[in-house]
Amino acid sequence: MEGLKTIQLEAPYLILLGDVTAKDLAKTGFGIVQWRPKLVAGQLRFPECPLDLGVPDMTVAEAAAAGVRSLIIGVAPVGGVIPDSWWAAVEEAAAAGMDIVCGLHVKLDDNPAIAAAAGSSGARLIDVREPPGRLPVGRGTKRSGKRILTVGVDCAVGKKYAALALDEAMRGGGFKSTFRASGQTGIMIAGVGIAIDSVVADFVSGAAELLSPDNDDDHWDVIEGQGSLFHPGYAGVSLGLLHGSQPDGIVVCAHATRKAITEWPDFPVPAVNECIERNIVEGRLTNPDIRCVGVSVNTSALTSEERSDYLAALQEETGLPCVDPIATGCDAIVDYVRAEFS
Amino acid sequence: MEGLKTIQLEAPYLILLGDVTAKDLAKTGFGIVQWRPKLVAGQLRFPECPLDLGVPDMTVAEAAAAGVRSLIIGVAPVGGVIPDSWWAAVEEAAAAGMDIVCGLHVKLDDNPAIAAAAGSSGARLIDVREPPGRLPVGRGTKRSGKRILTVGVDCAVGKKYAALALDEAMRGGGFKSTFRASGQTGIMIAGVGIAIDSVVADFVSGAAELLSPDNDDDHWDVIEGQGSLFHPGYAGVSLGLLHGSQPDGIVVCAHATRKAITEWPDFPVPAVNECIERNIVEGRLTNPDIRCVGVSVNTSALTSEERSDYLAALQEETGLPCVDPIATGCDAIVDYVRAEFS
Repeated sequence: MEGLKTIQLEAPYLILLGDVTAKDLAKTGFGIVQWRPKLVAGQLRFPECPLDLGVPDMTVAEAAAAGVRSLIIGVAPVGGVIPDSWWAAVEEAAAAGMDIVCGLHVKLDDNPAIAAAAGSSGARLIDVREPPGRLPVGRGTKRSGKRILTVGVDCAVGKKYAALALDEAMRGGGFKSTFRASGQTGIMIAGVGIAIDSVVADFVSGAAELLSPDNDDDHWDVIEGQGSLFHPGYAGVSLGLLHGSQPDGIVVCAHATRKAITEWPDFPVPAVNECIERNIVEGRLTNPDIRCVGVSVNTSALTSEERSDYLAALQEETGLPCVDPIATGCDAIVDYVRAEFS
Repeated sequence: MEGLKTIQLEAPYLILLGDVTAKDLAKTGFGIVQWRPKLVAGQLRFPECPLDLGVPDMTVAEAAAAGVRSLIIGVAPVGGVIPDSWWAAVEEAAAAGMDIVCGLHVKLDDNPAIAAAAGSSGARLIDVREPPGRLPVGRGTKRSGKRILTVGVDCAVGKKYAALALDEAMRGGGFKSTFRASGQTGIMIAGVGIAIDSVVADFVSGAAELLSPDNDDDHWDVIEGQGSLFHPGYAGVSLGLLHGSQPDGIVVCAHATRKAITEWPDFPVPAVNECIERNIVEGRLTNPDIRCVGVSVNTSALTSEERSDYLAALQEETGLPCVDPIATGCDAIVDYVRAEFS
């Protein structure tokens, strides 16, 4: 997977939370600890920070002594920039030889002190949004191994979460499975991947082909989806990712109570069956055997009873296992995959 | 159209053909002379060049004296780079204050002599493949004016040619019409545009929205399409351009004898009706009233009689005007548009 070499993170991580106070802004840090706890050595919180990832607190010096290899900027501060008060810690980490890993709209090497510290220690300054330099055009050539792609009725419906949860459930069910990250938070969790939405348009499906390379015939890649074919801003990204992924199975991700595309109020969220059908029609171009293997719904706005009714009705409507990965887990989808592909 | 300011070419042009010997490699130069002859002051050919654009031969000094504003590199030399023997002429033009306009995989300002010459004269070094710096995400908001987008069953089926020919026929038929360029050759012809395939994936539909901004209710933009929804490498580009263009009408571009996607031999070219239907299904997201207004076919491999039979059969099959813009012109499509939108 030569094309991916530019984004290959080194563990263990120290996760920088800084002085962020809202849990929502620290989703990346929480996600890494939830899905890849073994990669995390500790957290660096400033006194004002009330959040707690549940891992040891460490100064940069303590982390360096403990063999930490990367400082992960695990938060999205308001404005998308690194506050002035954080730079001293970042510089100290870079000087100590830790890679600095960041997905914000900040170019780390635009800061001369950071660039100098990294230059003398050999630390890397890694922007996880930056795609590898020489991507190919998608060829559509069939690859070995099996693939599942999470697709959405909208952005922000849990495509990353569903892929991570399904990958875990697949492995728990005895499958060989690998989560493949197509967005910045996913890349920080997986330690590798390509931010598909940052790729130049001509190379989106080619980048997606690199993301899930040839593998054992009984190995499954569970690929994080992006956007939605029904999104007026991002559908092209979703289509390129669908074509390059060549999924054998798609999992449609939906939201139980959302009516309109987030921040695009004039665009209704499609019905789950319409989303299944459209993805299958388009996906057949590079995998004629594509089928839907399940539906993953964010039902957080429902009561437990409403959730059961909702998922049962959707299961009736689609004829597919319908889960909320947080509330019910993904085992029903794993069972369906086992039956369909045995 | 502020986002487009970075690509706004200055006429008159001197077209550099250099020592290219194959007409195929000089398509850009021939295209500019064909479609925008008034922009062209002359051609610069080296002694080895047997091609002739039919415009006056000029040295750089003669062009400068005649008020030429831009040197257009109107050829694609083998390898996509500017041969060493051409640089002296390019430098002389830059020193004389002419903008240097290039769509090759060469960064003009990587050449120190060219950069210095342009720096002291104030000439611009323009890469027509380079998108404007700050593009928006597509919003899908309905714009005023009418739009036609050429879409394809494949790449290289004459989408640019069809758009230029239809724009000309629309104006000839009394319509207000503007050709909108989405690729590098189109940009050199129109003098303005965005190379959609060079845009970062997240911004493709946003770039397409900039390309055909609000206009008079009775004004038509005829937009150059890119790629094909049936292309395993480029479909995402095509979908983003379709969504951002919000076309009222599409013209499907096809090729009478092509069976497989060019350079993707395992992927068949879709039937015209399938291509119409898919583009309409997808295009409805941002324009529910989208319809197909005609089919443009490259019939260059057919005899005159075969062409008539082919186009008549296709017209029967699609119920739409079917033309070869070179052999028959686009008036049948203009008539159809007039009837459909009156």
